[in-house]
Amino acid sequence: MANELYHYSVVSSLMEGIGDSGIPYKALIHHGDHGLGTFRRMAGEMICLDGSVYQMKSDGSIVAIDPSAGTDVAPFAMVTRFRPTLTTGITFSNKQDLSDVMTKLFPKTKNHYLAFRIDGTFSKIAVRTADGQKYKHEKLRELHKRQTTYEFTNIRGSLIGFRSPEFLQGVSVAGDHLHFISDERDRGGHVLDCAADGEVQFSGAVMSTIHLQLPEDDEYNEAELTLDSEGIRVVEG
Amino acid sequence: MANELYHYSVVSSLMEGIGDSGIPYKALIHHGDHGLGTFRRMAGEMICLDGSVYQMKSDGSIVAIDPSAGTDVAPFAMVTRFRPTLTTGITFSNKQDLSDVMTKLFPKTKNHYLAFRIDGTFSKIAVRTADGQKYKHEKLRELHKRQTTYEFTNIRGSLIGFRSPEFLQGVSVAGDHLHFISDERDRGGHVLDCAADGEVQFSGAVMSTIHLQLPEDDEYNEAELTLDSEGIRVVEG
Repeated sequence: MANELYHYSVVSSLMEGIGDSGIPYKALIHHGDHGLGTFRRMAGEMICLDGSVYQMKSDGSIVAIDPSAGTDVAPFAMVTRFRPTLTTGITFSNKQDLSDVMTKLFPKTKNHYLAFRIDGTFSKIAVRTADGQKYKHEKLRELHKRQTTYEFTNIRGSLIGFRSPEFLQGVSVAGDHLHFISDERDRGGHVLDCAADGEVQFSGAVMSTIHLQLPEDDEYNEAELTLDSEGIRVVEG
Repeated sequence: MANELYHYSVVSSLMEGIGDSGIPYKALIHHGDHGLGTFRRMAGEMICLDGSVYQMKSDGSIVAIDPSAGTDVAPFAMVTRFRPTLTTGITFSNKQDLSDVMTKLFPKTKNHYLAFRIDGTFSKIAVRTADGQKYKHEKLRELHKRQTTYEFTNIRGSLIGFRSPEFLQGVSVAGDHLHFISDERDRGGHVLDCAADGEVQFSGAVMSTIHLQLPEDDEYNEAELTLDSEGIRVVEG
């Protein structure tokens, strides 16, 4: 159904370094055409738009994934069949400003999820990409220390994101979580900051139905999952 | 689908006293034949078994609910189409002992939900029932202070329960959450303690697919939801 969230695994599992197992891409895109996630062993950032899946790697390269080929899996992903209920032109000076703009566009939704997408020319996009686990169960806090960052200016592309409620921190990343990919599909990553001096097109929808799929493999089953709220803010902020 | 969990609202919302709105019973039982929850304004304890819904009130009376009649709602409920994957005879000396027995029956499931049911003659069942909000948005911690408790001995009936993972405290009640109803359908409530000196029949199933429905009304939207883990333990323990 449109604007229902398919949520594979939980962020607390990623934090614990559970990265070897996951959902096959083919199964994932069955649940949505819009979303974000990560790859086996956290090798790069996943962005899903218009049903296409891209792997944005730490060396700056981007690989278009053919979900029907291969058997690779995503240890964490959030996707939806995105059908925006609100579309409007916006500008914003930084990530926090974008967050404030969205809060005004969607009042009284703090206890829900939002799916959103922003298309156009961005004056600034700062991204990071994870470079993958060096060893099994390496925690996200460790990977974070050697993330690669890039900054782009006046770049055309798309931001794909979700807002998650504060009380679901640990399941999701509380607050706004955005990935970016350029129109040329040659640059992108997990968004640290962003700005649009000129108008860009925002589209969004509230989501209140969540399909949470907990992994069923031993790697997940054996993990000691706890809520590291501060860690999630450091790693996914 | 069998053994998928339909989860209406979150425990953190109940804690905040969000009790005026909810899911109509008719819609709820569409999602499952086994479960528990509460009623508008937390007036009593809900138990759902074999597709029947009962309201266990603080005055000790029990009302069979006709889900197709009326327009009343449940502000919180968890139900599943229960199809046990394991059935066995067990005994246990108290609630913690029952918990330990289940952990042995279902190893490596601490990051999942369990649905279970226990039928037979129980040597002891101690229950409480909430008596309903005295005013709008009265918090569960306040209601808790005037809960009614009953203790039954050598009583035939059914325990209906869920085990929820620790990292989902606030969404659900972490750990084991059980309601009881007698075979005569004349006694029951939220289980504080229980024992079965003689063998009773346990049946259970792991659940890894959760359909979380967040309410869409203003009462929920405007609530300030935070995780009160200690409060949940006090109120739902």
